[in-house]
Amino acid sequence: MKRRHALGAAALGITTSVLTSCAGGQRSRPAVESDSDLPQIRWRMATSWPVSLDTIFGGAAMVCERVRLLSGGRFDIRPYAAGELVPGLEVLDAVQSGSVQCGHTAAYYYVGKNPAFAFATSVPFGLDAQQQNAWLYEGGGNAAVDRLFADFGARAFPAGNTGTQMGGWFKRQIDSPADLQGLKMRIPGLGGKVMAALGVNVQVLPGGEIFLALERGAIDAAEWTGPYDDEKLGLNRAADFYYHPGWWEPGPTVHALVNEEQWAALPKIYQDMFSSACHQANLRMLCRYEALNGTTLTRLLAGGTQLMTYSDEILQAARDASFQLYADSARGDADFRRLFEQWRGFRAELMAWNRTVYPLTRFLHQSEVS
Amino acid sequence: MKRRHALGAAALGITTSVLTSCAGGQRSRPAVESDSDLPQIRWRMATSWPVSLDTIFGGAAMVCERVRLLSGGRFDIRPYAAGELVPGLEVLDAVQSGSVQCGHTAAYYYVGKNPAFAFATSVPFGLDAQQQNAWLYEGGGNAAVDRLFADFGARAFPAGNTGTQMGGWFKRQIDSPADLQGLKMRIPGLGGKVMAALGVNVQVLPGGEIFLALERGAIDAAEWTGPYDDEKLGLNRAADFYYHPGWWEPGPTVHALVNEEQWAALPKIYQDMFSSACHQANLRMLCRYEALNGTTLTRLLAGGTQLMTYSDEILQAARDASFQLYADSARGDADFRRLFEQWRGFRAELMAWNRTVYPLTRFLHQSEVS
Repeated sequence: MKRRHALGAAALGITTSVLTSCAGGQRSRPAVESDSDLPQIRWRMATSWPVSLDTIFGGAAMVCERVRLLSGGRFDIRPYAAGELVPGLEVLDAVQSGSVQCGHTAAYYYVGKNPAFAFATSVPFGLDAQQQNAWLYEGGGNAAVDRLFADFGARAFPAGNTGTQMGGWFKRQIDSPADLQGLKMRIPGLGGKVMAALGVNVQVLPGGEIFLALERGAIDAAEWTGPYDDEKLGLNRAADFYYHPGWWEPGPTVHALVNEEQWAALPKIYQDMFSSACHQANLRMLCRYEALNGTTLTRLLAGGTQLMTYSDEILQAARDASFQLYADSARGDADFRRLFEQWRGFRAELMAWNRTVYPLTRFLHQSEVS
Repeated sequence: MKRRHALGAAALGITTSVLTSCAGGQRSRPAVESDSDLPQIRWRMATSWPVSLDTIFGGAAMVCERVRLLSGGRFDIRPYAAGELVPGLEVLDAVQSGSVQCGHTAAYYYVGKNPAFAFATSVPFGLDAQQQNAWLYEGGGNAAVDRLFADFGARAFPAGNTGTQMGGWFKRQIDSPADLQGLKMRIPGLGGKVMAALGVNVQVLPGGEIFLALERGAIDAAEWTGPYDDEKLGLNRAADFYYHPGWWEPGPTVHALVNEEQWAALPKIYQDMFSSACHQANLRMLCRYEALNGTTLTRLLAGGTQLMTYSDEILQAARDASFQLYADSARGDADFRRLFEQWRGFRAELMAWNRTVYPLTRFLHQSEVS
């Protein structure tokens, strides 16, 4: 990996603010120099995704494609599927060590390193995609998340969102919290911790093993993501009851991570290209999930899948257990406490504002069911 | 305005798809040529906004800033406030004539030229911001909108979204459709047409005249956008009752428009920069509105504003009148019919999918009110 700092003055002298530079009057014309000394840079991007998940791997590919287009091919990043360079859940480690320059992953895979990483992605009964973006970009979220990643020598950029996921596939109906007792369910992360608090026998299996375990009855239930990705795993052929809402992942952010030294060595103009590419992937991945999940859900229901709603009794028990978990974690961990309190304050105000939209949502869903 | 086509081969030869070029194996290294022949280009962007609306004018400024950063200052676009170059509602005309190269405006300002432009921005009981983006980028929306703008020699790029707006300021309570009869309300666009169908005496006033008219009682009610922008106009000092939800603008898209000949004359790499900058502005404007509206609503309520919810009876009457309006317009106009039918099909499937999230939204809003 080369570290070259040489670049034209035009590319460096562009840090003034929007209103002074963009709307300014008679400022002198910026010098146009040759930037043929902008370096050719090749990076490798480790990801947590198989190529077959074209939605989420597609987000990584979009970051790379946009950077390549914007740089005229000079800044060339190649995305690798999970396992090609490092296992899917070790992307942060690879970025930290510098064995890859960058990655595309979910921060909450690393809660073992720091529990507060959960907020960077999604927590049960937390923020939906739009709220999560508002918190990250305008509510202090990105700065708070960056402080966590700094301990691991990495910079973090929102670079995708799956939208609200589903609440899992069940082989039998679940009406009340009593029905959850002893149920064997594949559900990792904080959702799994909450389910465990409700009496579920929580199982953790990699994606490729879920179908067989569910189909053969080794487990009673399993969650993955949403209709489009779940159908790829064949989960609709292993269980009939498809529950919603996916209360444990209301709007998960996917992050691009960059090794801090590699980032610092980039020409400023390449940093801007990387940042813009991440914004674009963040916006477009969600759009793709929304459109594909809509089409796929229609097909699943036509194929016999039973769409089931979690009862308010279960939602209430899960919500109580979730916020109890946050309170317990905040007592035991300073980073978690700091993140949680900052996040909770923003969330309360944003929810109060978003509550003004709720009567329209409620009305539309009621009036269009028939 | 210069039209220079000269640019390096590296910048032109970059149109292959993501998966073949980005994840491809041993392809030959792209030639790195000097692109000192990439032209210095200066454009003017006419907007429909006063600079004081830093949210929405800020979206135009962000497009310009990102293009400037990504091009190392070579592609330099300056945004102008409404009235500086052309009146705020004549941006499309200016782009069409070529008197400016580009603009930042709302497509529904031009429904007089083509009623179907309404769908490009927002229609009553239509799509929220996330749904609107899914439709535009992944549901055929952008292609449909581009066909409309082609008749006016313009290309269109989503470049901002205000999020769901509010339902207006009223001097007295409105409980049922009967209370709307003869009410003088400032409300333009399709929302105004629906209100007129419900018996409202619809007024159209520019933003700068709303406060005085409402404060002095020349009108009984007025809508502008949402808490942050409305407070700037002082509307909270002219009326006490602030209604929600803003059913006539669930998620308005703001568009960047580019004169088609100027677009065709741009180096491909500048087209990519412009497109990426518009994506970024689209994502970030919404985040900014959401965060600022949350803070402002808290302040307005503390200052005595009464938050009021439209009754289901009014919502039902307004929804019926809206879809009647679309049906009538579709009968009379081929473009409107084509857009409406395409939009309605996508909306039905997306709403069915988004309905899976509704129980979580409902639960959160009910459980957190207390």
